[in-house]
Amino acid sequence: MLTLSLIGIGCGDPDQLTRAAVQAINAADLVLIPRKGTAKSDLADLRRTICAGVLTSDKTAIAEFDLPVRDAAEADYRKGVDDWHDTVAATWSQTIANHLEGEGKVALLIWGDPSLYDSSLRIARRLNPLPGIEVVPGITSIQALCAAHALPLNDIGEPFLVTTGRRLREGGWPQGVDTLVVMLDGGTAFQALDPEGLQIWWGAYLGMPDQVVMSGALAEIGPRIVAARQEARERHGWIMDSYILKRVH
Amino acid sequence: MLTLSLIGIGCGDPDQLTRAAVQAINAADLVLIPRKGTAKSDLADLRRTICAGVLTSDKTAIAEFDLPVRDAAEADYRKGVDDWHDTVAATWSQTIANHLEGEGKVALLIWGDPSLYDSSLRIARRLNPLPGIEVVPGITSIQALCAAHALPLNDIGEPFLVTTGRRLREGGWPQGVDTLVVMLDGGTAFQALDPEGLQIWWGAYLGMPDQVVMSGALAEIGPRIVAARQEARERHGWIMDSYILKRVH
Ligand SMILES: C[S@@+](CC[C@H](N)C(=O)[O-])C[C@H]1O[C@@H](n2cnc3c(N)ncnc32)[C@H](O)[C@@H]1O
Ligand SMILES: C[S@@+](CC[C@H](N)C(=O)[O-])C[C@H]1O[C@@H](n2cnc3c(N)ncnc32)[C@H](O)[C@@H]1O
Repeated sequence: MLTLSLIGIGCGDPDQLTRAAVQAINAADLVLIPRKGTAKSDLADLRRTICAGVLTSDKTAIAEFDLPVRDAAEADYRKGVDDWHDTVAATWSQTIANHLEGEGKVALLIWGDPSLYDSSLRIARRLNPLPGIEVVPGITSIQALCAAHALPLNDIGEPFLVTTGRRLREGGWPQGVDTLVVMLDGGTAFQALDPEGLQIWWGAYLGMPDQVVMSGALAEIGPRIVAARQEARERHGWIMDSYILKRVH
Repeated sequence: MLTLSLIGIGCGDPDQLTRAAVQAINAADLVLIPRKGTAKSDLADLRRTICAGVLTSDKTAIAEFDLPVRDAAEADYRKGVDDWHDTVAATWSQTIANHLEGEGKVALLIWGDPSLYDSSLRIARRLNPLPGIEVVPGITSIQALCAAHALPLNDIGEPFLVTTGRRLREGGWPQGVDTLVVMLDGGTAFQALDPEGLQIWWGAYLGMPDQVVMSGALAEIGPRIVAARQEARERHGWIMDSYILKRVH
């Protein structure tokens, strides 16, 4: 019997690991670490460091593999993602087969929490044969962002929407909510909004040594975030950031 | 100097504690544990058990205090909450003053994550004198729910709304989203919806020994959840549950 644990490891700070995550990593026969190309090699390094810091025996093998790249030329976005999930599933299967003989415990370290804007659960369901799947929750970037700002995410009894930069850029401020969490923003989609009455809490490299946070009225702080983001991105070669927007009445 | 750490402890399973939470609890001079009346005394017990299992020295004092009850007779809901926050802040100040002489590290154990439907950050800001405030993120009930169901929360690139039972009951299905997380539902607000095309993933006592989860088409599973919830609530004297609804196109 093969089991696969998708283990949330938090989003940068190794101390965000839960005790359950530490136990699940140590219970594994094999830990898979994806390499995502040089720009984000810091992140593979971080996974490697986390593994090394957590493993208490040497009976757990660690296998790195190159994450296949999605075919950006595929015109149909859904189909592109679908094909990519198949390719990744095949890579996982191959890497697992190289190390285990049809049985054992495999662990996959997932950035943040496996349920939040992550494809691993969908990919895992395409493995053949289908392993037993277990999910270990991890601290998300949303929580790291709120913690860094000591910010209550929702207003009392009020809803909030978690969305993407693309959605915000294309659809504007959504109806019926005064709090937005924006993730997966390749740029600064908040610039598409009328900043009047909006507050922002922004954070990049949350939980990492280079964590940077800024907050304030969007009209005032927005342009400064644009500049800081640009500068940080050039220096690191990559950036991961997210932000919360609130409409004040 | 007085510092206050709001420490997310996850929502039932002590293994959801992060390493940062364990460290912050051990770094405290004083841990505050609220008692919320007999019905939910299991929860105070759980906090006590977590403390006992985590503390490695006896230099940390533990102080329990009775959480003041909100004045439900106050017609103005906002004002009722506001007054209650003042009263709770006064209780914290008093309990702290009973144990520390104006300086030291105080830890407050927060269910789930301090940023999610929790008032502690707002109350902390009313303390006088104002302590330094630090937030340690914890696993939320949303993540425990997704993990228990091995469910990806969002669809690929799509937003999701986190809301309350009251909002859902009063406002129906909100515009522009196909995924809802419903918390703080004193009843079963999903019954107010036309179940056609809706799927539900429900969980109660997540992370606790009595965890129960159910999922499926709302039309079919909804009535079973209503019955299971009723039965569990009577047996325990209290219930904490949440659910995810998805609209399938
Ligand atoms: C593919 S999603 C994965 C989210 C992850 N599963 C989680 O639980 O946070 C990547 C997005 O998460 C956010 N993110 C992840 N790590 C972050 C960090 N350390 N600092 C700021 N944002 C981060 C960014 O918005 C980024 O675009
Ligand atoms: C006052 S809010 C606190 C939320 C908490 N801060 C968190 O991060 O999950 C309480 C609500 O959280 C949800 N909840 C908390 N613990 C839960 C559990 N163990 N199982 C199911 N739902 C839970 C329920 O919807 C409950 O009404």
